Amino acid sequence: MSTFKRIVLASRPQGQVAPDNFRLEEVPVPSLKDGELLVRNHYLSLDPYMRMRMEDVKSYAAPQAIGDTMVGGTVGEVVDSKNPKFAVGDKVQGMLGWAEMGVSDGALLRKLDTTHIPLSAYLGAVGMPGMTAWYGLTQIMQPKEGETIVVSAASGAVGSAVGQLAKQRGCRAVGIAGGKEKCDYVVNELGFDACIDYKAGNLAADLAQATPNGIDAVFENVGGEGFDACLARMNPFGRIALCGLIAGYDGQPMPLNNVRYLLTMRLTLRGFIVSEHMDLWPQGLKELGGLVATGKLKYRETVAGGLAAAPEAFMGMLKGRNFGKQIVKLI
Amino acid sequence: MSTFKRIVLASRPQGQVAPDNFRLEEVPVPSLKDGELLVRNHYLSLDPYMRMRMEDVKSYAAPQAIGDTMVGGTVGEVVDSKNPKFAVGDKVQGMLGWAEMGVSDGALLRKLDTTHIPLSAYLGAVGMPGMTAWYGLTQIMQPKEGETIVVSAASGAVGSAVGQLAKQRGCRAVGIAGGKEKCDYVVNELGFDACIDYKAGNLAADLAQATPNGIDAVFENVGGEGFDACLARMNPFGRIALCGLIAGYDGQPMPLNNVRYLLTMRLTLRGFIVSEHMDLWPQGLKELGGLVATGKLKYRETVAGGLAAAPEAFMGMLKGRNFGKQIVKLI
Repeated sequence: MSTFKRIVLASRPQGQVAPDNFRLEEVPVPSLKDGELLVRNHYLSLDPYMRMRMEDVKSYAAPQAIGDTMVGGTVGEVVDSKNPKFAVGDKVQGMLGWAEMGVSDGALLRKLDTTHIPLSAYLGAVGMPGMTAWYGLTQIMQPKEGETIVVSAASGAVGSAVGQLAKQRGCRAVGIAGGKEKCDYVVNELGFDACIDYKAGNLAADLAQATPNGIDAVFENVGGEGFDACLARMNPFGRIALCGLIAGYDGQPMPLNNVRYLLTMRLTLRGFIVSEHMDLWPQGLKELGGLVATGKLKYRETVAGGLAAAPEAFMGMLKGRNFGKQIVKLI
Repeated sequence: MSTFKRIVLASRPQGQVAPDNFRLEEVPVPSLKDGELLVRNHYLSLDPYMRMRMEDVKSYAAPQAIGDTMVGGTVGEVVDSKNPKFAVGDKVQGMLGWAEMGVSDGALLRKLDTTHIPLSAYLGAVGMPGMTAWYGLTQIMQPKEGETIVVSAASGAVGSAVGQLAKQRGCRAVGIAGGKEKCDYVVNELGFDACIDYKAGNLAADLAQATPNGIDAVFENVGGEGFDACLARMNPFGRIALCGLIAGYDGQPMPLNNVRYLLTMRLTLRGFIVSEHMDLWPQGLKELGGLVATGKLKYRETVAGGLAAAPEAFMGMLKGRNFGKQIVKLI
């Protein structure tokens, strides 16, 4: 291969993301300098945070530059190396973006052991989404045995791990997801105690029924109506890990109406970005890897085929069309 | 005196508080049992939390019962005692409600030293409002020297103490208040670095100008537009002490629109009720009492005359018509 494909940010979204915000390019494979290595990416991860990076607004990371390769996590295989720490054939995880190949100096690459854990899982349950779940649950929600936790986007990469980790800690785990199929999966496959279908139109009443003892901690991925419904069910001194507000990413931000419960129930809410807490990754990944390798932490993937399918898959994910972790198979 | 006056909750507010939600009654002075004492209240404190207690909704305290004396903090003097720990003439602070007199077993009464601190200050800067400021600032906002803090209702009993305590810790203190007179007082008398008049119609722009380095911590008393404006100015890892949402108490709750900054700036928000942290009161009151006694912590009072004036003063306070701590002089 003398060339590879990549997708760059062509323009910033005006309202909802549209196909013409992206441009597929074919570029030459660069020659390696000393210390560099070339990775053939096998899978690309699609994640909600990318939506915020497409905008030119104040946020936790600098906005994606127009014309640059779209940011993204990848797993792949070293196909050429002038770096003594990496050999051809090594499996690696990195942030090489929406691209079939990538050059790295190795500093931010992590070598992967795929003996018991599939390569793609390092983009999900044993990667950033799994760590996001682990951090929010253990560091912010800090649930005690017998407490009730609620997680939105419960069938997704992060939400599915939150609920399963909470169940392992003896909690009542309640999910919120869109549609009967996802809810059935969350309860029957993942082992949550209940899952509310927000599309069924009885969110507040269904949530009340599923949380007879109120809610002690929330892992919020979505915002909007579901978040408001959770706030109204919170017990005193409840904790809220604010991980995402996907309902408001693609277009108009969603207002929060039940603000008063933050005060009256003396709640603690903390927004977080898991990449700022790298010191805890070894501890978290050890637990997550062990659970995945032994089949105790389940996950599901929606796989798009080929890099050119990434924009459509990404736009679908923002509307909740994926089921489990959304990835793109590149090879 | 064989009778005294009290005000009871006659009905729950439908929307805004109205005069007929209250009823003035004249009741006989009860005879004391062993262990009890009788207090003649000199001042009654009016505070925003009372508005929430008037409603029959889920909150941090049981709602006020219809027909019961309105809840409220008081300072006064012991006029009869069958309790060996209290003598006639002792000055005491308690929660004896909207009433000219009250009977207590002494358990929740605190004896006051009025040598250097005026009696009424124990309802304000050296009482619950002062402790509320002290707790939110020191336990939640935790500002470092050089950081910028913002407090809403800055000329009020709580807000004025927050800013002055922050200034003592080397912070830039910015207030939000309603009207030029209050803002001038906050800057010229209390020593804040700036104060935004939210009634001037340029809240967001004025706040941006007053916080050139962004905002590191917020003490929120009001909610609504001012809270949204603060969120948009927050620096990463900012802290928000959520003490009140007075803008939404009397009628419709105010939605929050800038929720995304809680996530993107990785903010920590905590709602609190100072009466749940009694263990810290001795430490806080020591600092507050010392500052008031030496003139380093200033405060202002709006004094209504006589118990019958309490409902009107309370309704005015909910609209921001008071200037500083709202109290009612009962004697």
